[in-house]
Formats: sequence, C-alpha cells, structure tokens
Amino acid sequence: MTTGKSEYFFKHRHIFGIEQFSVEDIAHILSTARSFKEISERPIKKVPTLRGKTIINFFFESSTRTRLSFEIAAKRMSADTFNIAASTSSTTKGETLIDTARNLEAMRPDIIIIRHASSGAPLLLSRHVNASIINAGDGAHEHPSQGLLDMMTIIEHKGQMSGLIIAIVGDIAHSRVARSDIIGFTKLGATVRVAGPATFMPSGIEQLGAHVCSSVEEAVDGADVVMALRIQHERLKDPLIPSLREYSTFFGVNRKLLERAKADVLIMHPGPINRGVELSPDVADGPGSVIMDQVTNGVAVRMALLYLVLGGEKNSDG
Amino acid sequence: MTTGKSEYFFKHRHIFGIEQFSVEDIAHILSTARSFKEISERPIKKVPTLRGKTIINFFFESSTRTRLSFEIAAKRMSADTFNIAASTSSTTKGETLIDTARNLEAMRPDIIIIRHASSGAPLLLSRHVNASIINAGDGAHEHPSQGLLDMMTIIEHKGQMSGLIIAIVGDIAHSRVARSDIIGFTKLGATVRVAGPATFMPSGIEQLGAHVCSSVEEAVDGADVVMALRIQHERLKDPLIPSLREYSTFFGVNRKLLERAKADVLIMHPGPINRGVELSPDVADGPGSVIMDQVTNGVAVRMALLYLVLGGEKNSDG
Amino acid sequence: MTTGKSEYFFKHRHIFGIEQFSVEDIAHILSTARSFKEISERPIKKVPTLRGKTIINFFFESSTRTRLSFEIAAKRMSADTFNIAASTSSTTKGETLIDTARNLEAMRPDIIIIRHASSGAPLLLSRHVNASIINAGDGAHEHPSQGLLDMMTIIEHKGQMSGLIIAIVGDIAHSRVARSDIIGFTKLGATVRVAGPATFMPSGIEQLGAHVCSSVEEAVDGADVVMALRIQHERLKDPLIPSLREYSTFFGVNRKLLERAKADVLIMHPGPINRGVELSPDVADGPGSVIMDQVTNGVAVRMALLYLVLGGEKNSDG
Repeated sequence: MTTGKSEYFFKHRHIFGIEQFSVEDIAHILSTARSFKEISERPIKKVPTLRGKTIINFFFESSTRTRLSFEIAAKRMSADTFNIAASTSSTTKGETLIDTARNLEAMRPDIIIIRHASSGAPLLLSRHVNASIINAGDGAHEHPSQGLLDMMTIIEHKGQMSGLIIAIVGDIAHSRVARSDIIGFTKLGATVRVAGPATFMPSGIEQLGAHVCSSVEEAVDGADVVMALRIQHERLKDPLIPSLREYSTFFGVNRKLLERAKADVLIMHPGPINRGVELSPDVADGPGSVIMDQVTNGVAVRMALLYLVLGGEKNSDG
Repeated sequence: MTTGKSEYFFKHRHIFGIEQFSVEDIAHILSTARSFKEISERPIKKVPTLRGKTIINFFFESSTRTRLSFEIAAKRMSADTFNIAASTSSTTKGETLIDTARNLEAMRPDIIIIRHASSGAPLLLSRHVNASIINAGDGAHEHPSQGLLDMMTIIEHKGQMSGLIIAIVGDIAHSRVARSDIIGFTKLGATVRVAGPATFMPSGIEQLGAHVCSSVEEAVDGADVVMALRIQHERLKDPLIPSLREYSTFFGVNRKLLERAKADVLIMHPGPINRGVELSPDVADGPGSVIMDQVTNGVAVRMALLYLVLGGEKNSDG
Repeated sequence: MTTGKSEYFFKHRHIFGIEQFSVEDIAHILSTARSFKEISERPIKKVPTLRGKTIINFFFESSTRTRLSFEIAAKRMSADTFNIAASTSSTTKGETLIDTARNLEAMRPDIIIIRHASSGAPLLLSRHVNASIINAGDGAHEHPSQGLLDMMTIIEHKGQMSGLIIAIVGDIAHSRVARSDIIGFTKLGATVRVAGPATFMPSGIEQLGAHVCSSVEEAVDGADVVMALRIQHERLKDPLIPSLREYSTFFGVNRKLLERAKADVLIMHPGPINRGVELSPDVADGPGSVIMDQVTNGVAVRMALLYLVLGGEKNSDG
C-alpha cells in the first residue's frame, strides 16, 4: 500500500555552495545537524558512523578553525582524517590542481574537503575524482558550511528564518561568507540588508536578493540579526578604503548602533574577530552574542555534511 | 562504618606547574604514570581509557618532542588528537589568545595542551574555557610534565628523592625546566644546587629552595644527580655570555668533573643535547646517563596527567 | 614427518632498498600487497591488523604524496600515525640525526618511516633504534616502496616482468626512483634501458644492469614499458642542462616517439608530472598510461611493507 507522500532524498554527492540547495535540502541538513549536535556534549564524543572512511582536508589557504572544525567533525564520527596544506603540497612543484586531485583520488578517499583561493576550484575537482567534494571556501564565491551553521544558529534562537530582518555589515565584496549567507537566508524567507564602505560593496549584489543600504544605521534599523564580517587588515592599507579607526567609527557595531535594532537582536560574526574594529568588545561578549554558538554548530553542521554526502544511513557503519 | 583513613583525591582539573602540587599529588601522579608505563612496552600499545575524548595540542613555540610525547600519550589511551601550530593559527590574524581559546572551547575539547612564550598563558586560558588545560611550557615559568618525568626517572633509579643532592648546571635564568625541577625536587626532600654563568643566574632563585654555587665543581661535589640544561645557541651570541668553547670549558659536564660526584651519579638532560657543549659525548652516552629514560617516562607521565585531569577512573571508557 | 619443501620466511626488519631483496622477497611483498589492495576498495576501508602500533613519518624533505600514501596505508591497518616534518624537528636546534632517532626510540615507536637528503640515513638510523626503519627516499640512493609499486603495476598489466623491455627516460643521475627500479626490474628478469641528457647520466649505471642508450629513440624502440622521470625545475637553471623547451623536444615522451614502442606500451611516471615536459598531455592521459595505478598500488605496497616488517601474521591483532 502506497501513501501519497513522496519521501525526501538528499541527492547531493558534492557540496559546492548554498546555491545548489532547495529549502527542503537545507531543512534536512539542519535537522541532521541538530541530531548530531548532542554527540559533542557527551562524555564519550564518538560514534562509529563513518568508521573506515578516508577524509582529506586539502587546504590551499591557511585556516585554523575551519580545518579543525571539519577534522573534529570527522573524528567524532570515527573517520580517518588526513591534512594537506598547500605549502607542503606538490602543487608547489608545478603540478596542476587536477593532477594533484587525481593522485589523491587514486588513494581512494571518500571525501576531499577543499579550501582554495579560486572560485570554482571545488567544482573543477569534482569533475576529475570519484570522491565527494566539500567546499570549505573558494575565493569570493561560497563557504557553504559557514552559511549552514549561520542558519542553524539563527533558527536555534529565533525559531525560524522566515520574516526575519538580517543586517550584514562590512566587506561584502570579498566575503564568500556573505554570499552563502545572503543566498541561504533569502531562500528561507528572511530579508537581508547589506551595508559597508562603498568600495566593499559589489555591484550586482541585489541579484542575490540583498537590499543595499546607504548606511549601517539604515541596515540595522529594526533588525533581528546583525552579522559583522571580518575586515582583512591588509585590505585596509588600500588608499580607497578607510583606516581602521574610520572603519570602526562608521561601520563598527556598537551598543549605540544597536539601539536601532530589535531589543532581542542576535549578534553574529564568522570569526576571527578584530575586537574594537568590527564589533565593540561589549557587543561581542554581550547578551545577544551567539558567536560561540556559531562555532559549536559548525561542528554539528560539518558532521551532517560528511554523513549526508556519503549517502547517510545507507553507508554508515553501525 | 567509616574508617579513620581519609582517601586521597586528585583535585586538579588543570596543570599549570609543579608549584600547585602537594607531595601527595606528586606521589599519586608518579604512581599512576608507573602503572601506565608498561602499556608502551606491549605489542599492542593501546588502551580504551580516553576513547572519545578530544585533546588539542596548541603550540605557540615549535617543539617536536614534547608535542609528539603528548600526542603519543593521548593516542595510546585512544583519545582523538588535534595539532594547532602557532604559525597557522588565527592568532596571526590579530585575534587575541582568549578569543582563540573560546573558539576552541566552542568545539568542546576535553583537554587543551598549550605551549606559549608568555608565562601565565595556561592560567589565563583556564579562566575562559571549560576544557582542562595542561601547561607544556610557558615562558620562563614552568614545564610541569618535564619536572614530573625528571622526578619519576630519579626515583626509578635512586628509590626516593629525599636526601639526594642534585646539581642543575647551565642557563638557570631562562629555563622553565629548572624552575619546575627545583620546586619539585625540594618538595620531595632533595637538596638542589645550581651553577652556571653569572649572566644565566636569576636573582631570587634561592627563594625556590635552590643553593647557588659559585662554580660547577662546588655544585657537583658529592652529587647524586647532575642535570645539564640546554644552551640556546642564539643566546651565546650575546656579548655578556661566554662563547660555546668557553661555555664548554667552564660549564660543560665531562668525566673529569664527575669525579667529584658520587660514583653512581645519574646524568640527566631535558634534550635536545648540544653534544660537546653541555655534556661531553662520553658522559651523554655513559653508564650513569638516564636521558633516554627521561624520554620514555615522559610518555608515561603525560598519560597519567591526561587521565587524572579528566577525573581518572570516574571518567574513563572501559 | 617433514616435507622437503622449505617454507619461505620474510626476514627483513628494515627496508633500505630493493637491493636487499631476493626475487622471492619481492614476490612475497607483491603477493601480500595484492591481498591488501582490495581493502582500499571496500566501503569500510579498515582492518585491525596493526592496531596499537606506533608509526612515525619522519620526513626531512617535503613530500605530499609519499607521506600521505604511508599515512593512509597505516591508518587503514588501524595503526596510530605521527608526522614529524624536518622544519619543525629538533634537528634544526643542532641535534644530530642519531640523537633525534634515539629520542624517538625512547617513545617506543614500532616503525619509523624516514625520508632524508643523505643516502644511507635509514641504515644509520637502524643501528641506533629498535624500531623497524622504512626508507621513504634517501638522497640519490633508493626509494624502495616506489620501486615495488612500479613492479606491482607492471606485473598487474603485463603478467610478469621477465623478458620485458623497459625504458627509463630522464634525470637518471639524481633519481633514487631510477635506481630502485633498475635494481628491481633486472632482478625480475627485465631488460632496462636508460636515456637522458648526458649530464643526467651517472657513470657506472651499467653496473646496476641498465643499458645506456645514446638517444631516447633507441631506448624506446620495441619497449613494453616507458617510464619518464620527473625533472626538477631548479636543475634546469643549470647552464650544463637543456632548457625546458629543449628537454621537452629531445627527451619528452610523446605519441610520435611511442610509435617506436610496442603497441600496448605502458606509460609510467613517479609523479608529480610536469605536463608538456616529461610527458605530452595526450600520453599522460592516454590509453597506455598506468600512472594512477601506480598511486593506487603505492598504498597497497606500503600496507604490505608495514605489515611484513612487524613480522606479518605473528604480530597482528585479529
């Protein structure tokens, strides 16, 4: 006897960006992440789910927290993990990315997690290997696990995304986090406003669904969530861009600015924070700050992604 | 029915230095280390004691042997280990130590092992995280696991510490090993003498219980143990400090000098040795040398510390 | 009752080079590797064979693929692995290789895998430690696991080595791969021809059993296998040596050259490839190319070596 209900099936073998997901996909990933979250709160933080799986962290840009978060996620599911940093990689010996990838593939990894300065590198990789590819940040394109952990954190605190007003403040142009967030937040029905120095505002960002505001005050007005993006110090040496002090004065998120937001506004930041620049310390550590929840949820979201790209229950051990 | 005997309880969740320990604490750690030592001699060097625990090696100074010793200790107890080297850490992106620590904490580590150039960094960390902190060397302050492995090695060979005469020779001022050793050895009833170039002798070292000798000969006279400290080559470029050759002539430990010591004197060194500088090769490899025993005991002591800070039997798996 | 048949016993505790092996040894290693190869094709790529064994990757030269291949091999057999890179090693603090080795030994590793710029470093190490030593490349001496994976790959495709004509093209003088290959291939009855720029041709190579050809065309004529070696870019800055373009013109392996070889010629390369230099892209990716098979077989061969040096079945767990 069949019911009329069609059963959901997570069909993605690779994770390139939030763009590829339906609303149902996002809901399924977050639901899976929520079910894995409590594993990290147990005295024995380990399940046998991915035992005997080979997961390679292939990072062409240095990263402590994203690499560590994926590695912790993998080991808590009993996978074997391997780290390759770009500086020690044979790509410095003149080998192409594709040749390196095919070499990795020949060692039969199940998942390759890649961070790369070029947008599209994960997609390119996926065309040459059988392993599942997870994008851990590619150029200014996407950083999907960050987008998902941001969604998980907001829904955890606000119950849902639909109808929320979310302000993203800072260097929108260079931020793959901003792109993944805008795409995801709007898919789930939130209104996204962006504000930042004019030189940090990419043309065409409205096409992703964001509303460009002419001031931070306008963006934050009545907001349920304020997310400050990280400023790269090296970018502030650019004469087109304000100094640290100017940036902090005009675009730093502080208590005074937040009087314009909703009383229960959430404060978020992808980290690492430049204290006193993007966020005043009292805001970073204040009552509405959910920055540490973002990090905690990051491990859960990555456990979910590792699990789902390998086929979920069909492929797990025990 | 109660007995009059009060049961010992190891109460330390963090290990900052030997200073925090009672004599009973030290005895308990060393007894635990002795019971774990044989695990490393088995064909299958693995027990499930810390399965599912997350242990992060967070090293701001490069170290092969201490990092490796902790990592081996952790894996032999089935913990999951993660290495973060300072150069790849986000602290180079301008993040404070505390922010980094709180980020690590949000990923739910059980233990963070930290090596840092600043004295007190482990204590600072412990105030901002729930994980247990183990100091793997902080500035010129303490290196408690080294102090403990030195005590374990001496007791292994001499039966007890009480009543022994121990000479520590070299760069006392810059040595966290010397500090941890002096504090521990004197707590257990040994007499500690120190000798070295005047510019390497810190003022106030007597307050730790050490006797400052005006020559190496005086320090070694009748000694049961002679410990030579490592000289940092870069320090010998300082015009206030003797050249390598001078150092070796006046402060190097050789057979002739050891004629003044007890016949069964133990030779120790925290490694890595500059052969022909702190120790003549025949002394380093001679019959009284227990330098390799120090390294072997280092793994056992670190297994004990990892086990005890997590609550010992109460918290272990199987 | 005894049979007249003497049973084979793999007697090598250390792997220094192909030179140490009898034909029977090689057959035994390759047969063991073939039996392990399917583990990497399973959904759960893990057997408990080396559980509780401590394996240290001690690499003094940077290497992504060889280090990763050994690490994957070790973890798929459930060993605990530890990576030490030379740049972070205490040998940079002035410690000798032997002191470092004895320190490692004191932590009771079962196997130390070493890559070092000096020929003979693995042999030296083996005299000072109880752990089994595996040479992962020493100077211009040998790279035995590469030699074995090359033999495994050729036999897999050609059925046997005996009677084959194998051309090795390129920088013979600086290549430990070429040495291990020549020794192994000739032991198994193949004819080995070498060709390359005169400045890359070591005197005395005939004594290993290789036939020196005056042109690549001569070497490839009627060959069953053509192996191109990697050119180090930095060597091509040497005025004695042709430019990249000249090298590619005179020594690059392309379709036209391969018309001289057997129709079913195998194309091999130890990687990483400089595309368009040692191999034209159509050859590297063409039908006879077994370069990815080499990488896959590398994991299997390394599993076999790790298993055999520890005594094979006598020492395994389950």
